Amino acid sequence: MTTTPIARGLEGVVFTESKLTFIDGEKGILTHLGIPIQEWAESSSFEELSYALLHGRLPNAKELDHFDHDLRQHRYVPQELIENIKLYPRRMNPMQALRTAVSHLGMLDPHSEDDTHEGRYRIGVHLIAQFATIIAAIARVKEGKEPVAPRKDLGHAANFLYMLKGHVPTEEEARLFDMALILHADHSMNASTFTAIATISTLSDMYSAITSAVGSLKGPLHGGANEAVMDMLDDIGSLSHVDDYIGGKLERKEKIMGVGHRVYKYFDPRSRVLRDYAALVAEKQGKSNYYQMLERIEGIVLEKLSAKKLYPNVDFYSGVVYSDLGIKKEFFTPIFALARISGWVASVLEYVEHNRLLRPNALYTGPVDQHYVEIEKR
Amino acid sequence: MTTTPIARGLEGVVFTESKLTFIDGEKGILTHLGIPIQEWAESSSFEELSYALLHGRLPNAKELDHFDHDLRQHRYVPQELIENIKLYPRRMNPMQALRTAVSHLGMLDPHSEDDTHEGRYRIGVHLIAQFATIIAAIARVKEGKEPVAPRKDLGHAANFLYMLKGHVPTEEEARLFDMALILHADHSMNASTFTAIATISTLSDMYSAITSAVGSLKGPLHGGANEAVMDMLDDIGSLSHVDDYIGGKLERKEKIMGVGHRVYKYFDPRSRVLRDYAALVAEKQGKSNYYQMLERIEGIVLEKLSAKKLYPNVDFYSGVVYSDLGIKKEFFTPIFALARISGWVASVLEYVEHNRLLRPNALYTGPVDQHYVEIEKR
Ligand SMILES: CC(C)(COP(=O)(O)OP(=O)(O)OC[C@H]1O[C@@H](n2cnc3c(N)ncnc32)[C@H](O)[C@@H]1OP(=O)(O)O)[C@@H](O)C(=O)NCCC(=O)NCCS
Ligand SMILES: CC(C)(COP(=O)(O)OP(=O)(O)OC[C@H]1O[C@@H](n2cnc3c(N)ncnc32)[C@H](O)[C@@H]1OP(=O)(O)O)[C@@H](O)C(=O)NCCC(=O)NCCS
Repeated sequence: MTTTPIARGLEGVVFTESKLTFIDGEKGILTHLGIPIQEWAESSSFEELSYALLHGRLPNAKELDHFDHDLRQHRYVPQELIENIKLYPRRMNPMQALRTAVSHLGMLDPHSEDDTHEGRYRIGVHLIAQFATIIAAIARVKEGKEPVAPRKDLGHAANFLYMLKGHVPTEEEARLFDMALILHADHSMNASTFTAIATISTLSDMYSAITSAVGSLKGPLHGGANEAVMDMLDDIGSLSHVDDYIGGKLERKEKIMGVGHRVYKYFDPRSRVLRDYAALVAEKQGKSNYYQMLERIEGIVLEKLSAKKLYPNVDFYSGVVYSDLGIKKEFFTPIFALARISGWVASVLEYVEHNRLLRPNALYTGPVDQHYVEIEKR
Repeated sequence: MTTTPIARGLEGVVFTESKLTFIDGEKGILTHLGIPIQEWAESSSFEELSYALLHGRLPNAKELDHFDHDLRQHRYVPQELIENIKLYPRRMNPMQALRTAVSHLGMLDPHSEDDTHEGRYRIGVHLIAQFATIIAAIARVKEGKEPVAPRKDLGHAANFLYMLKGHVPTEEEARLFDMALILHADHSMNASTFTAIATISTLSDMYSAITSAVGSLKGPLHGGANEAVMDMLDDIGSLSHVDDYIGGKLERKEKIMGVGHRVYKYFDPRSRVLRDYAALVAEKQGKSNYYQMLERIEGIVLEKLSAKKLYPNVDFYSGVVYSDLGIKKEFFTPIFALARISGWVASVLEYVEHNRLLRPNALYTGPVDQHYVEIEKR
């Protein structure tokens, strides 16, 4: 029995097929529907990519228009939910709040148990739209401010920034944020998508699947890493402390946040797009403290860790980009969720079409042939 | 690439070790800590089994006393949560409500992010106690009644029935319910436990893990099956319609709820304990309509499906037992959660001690070598 091979972390285990996203971790390639992530980031929009993930192809102008209209129509959430969010404690963790609000929203949807493809699709599209409203409301409440209602005349990215800050962003800001959403929208069988699939595989409802995914994304080994990177930078404080700090971590064999990936054994292509952007801003506005530290850390990582195939991942530079947009670090992970919701919905819909209950095994290594002993005799 | 074997449903994939629960699906054997489930059901209590799962051994009298005291102390939930539950819509799905309430409770716990073993253990024990209070409150609110506060002088099972119904159950009722909790407390890597582990594997918090598990248990292929069995019986209506109904299902190759299991290819031993009890009640009080129908369905299943290694599972008889206790069928799955919370907590604590991020792969079968095409050209 001890010879059973254990697939720890399910590494390398293929459990399903997917037509959405392809990753070549050795070469640092990421595509959606066969199109490289760089092209999506450069030319597409979050709305278009969401459509493409849900439908398996690029929309024509009319289809995109219709889809975009659908999203705009469904930005609103029941006032009951907003009132409830206002009751959340001010010190709430925003991901715990998002997890709770999505779950609550499910309770308020009279069609939440619709398990037809159309029913699940409908909930999924609404959630893509509603995530923006919910996350912005949580952020406002946490700051002691009144939530801002969505506006139908703005694109998805611009509307989110508007609801977050209470004023319409510049076109440049909206475009940059849109690009960040595109980069995070899907990533094949990452832990949160996988958790969503594990949940739907019991034929549970869409809200359950997405709630599970939020809880999973929250973890510092997954979505929480972008926040952890900024914590690390704040911890280090300034460029002159980088070498000692990172050197110490490496010596103590501690993990450096924003580095390493289960699948990428080379540069994560998303980290390159984000770095290029961050470099651009640095060029225009002068190098920020954060940017300088990241540059230096990347240098050390490439020198010391590339032999172990550890490279900067998507989270390494995303924080500095969000910082440039004036977003607080405690909202980095919710913003990851704002993007990944499309990947979650698309992956769940794809899986459940040919559903099979997820039920692996554990190797039993406990006591055998025991009997219950009366408590007096223990 | 098409030759990659796909482990659909992760069937047979071993991804970790565990010392808690052993199942021999061919022989119909289930043990916790090496002790057969029949002995637990006969001699132990839910409190004792919970301790044993959390600590890997039976407690002595003093340890059990201390643990039981701890549970009783932590039956209370913040009044804020009860007030929030009162705002839930009357038509709520109880599992959606439980998912939301557990998630909300996490937001209210200032120590929710404590990621030490002691911190996670503490949250886990509190949740075992608090699940009873939350589920009973949801049931009361759903009936338009005021929630009943827990009583410290009652055992776990008796206190739950008291909070649910507003009066103290008989000793026989409490003992029977305790036995049902024991039978459902843990079952190795079932889908909800696995979902909890997937969530904690990102080093997310305990509340996230348990919220995910609730969402997963909700599904009709998993915890929702006991309710589905009762729906089926209500659908059939009477003994004389059983043969036609089940025959029709088999012909149309539809699944019969409460039958079949990923691991058991023989009788689920828990179904035998529950059947024996149901038979006992039937002998004393006369055969209920439900019981007669189940007896007949079991006969057909054994005749027609045992060649396919499909046998009644734990859900087949649990509903009729809960019915005998006067519990409505929409609360069968929450009661499953009330029991399984111990297995979730114990399994999560065991896994995270030697944590590895769960991140499997999908076989990519989508388009390759594509490029982004301007929308005008589509
Ligand atoms: C993402 C991650 C969980 C994937 O790791 P994994 O496939 O489970 O690999 P392991 O954690 O087993 O690490 C393998 C080896 O690389 C090392 N390693 C992994 N990530 C590392 C990091 N960020 N810094 C330093 N060393 C790291 C491990 O210590 C281990 O070394 P060893 O073989 O000498 O023991 C891991 O790289 C990590 O924790 N990174 C930091 C968090 C992060 O940025 N997550 C966001 C991912 S998008
Ligand atoms: C529990 C369950 C999901 C495990 O199934 P699984 O390992 O994924 O197996 P599959 O669903 O692939 O079924 C294998 C075969 O048995 C059949 N089968 C499985 N469960 C069946 C049932 N309850 N009634 C009739 N046929 C059933 C399937 O149709 C399939 O037949 P085929 O090979 O001719 O296509 C499944 O048995 C089921 O859905 N049962 C009913 C729900 C239930 O009671 N769940 C509670 C479990 S504690």
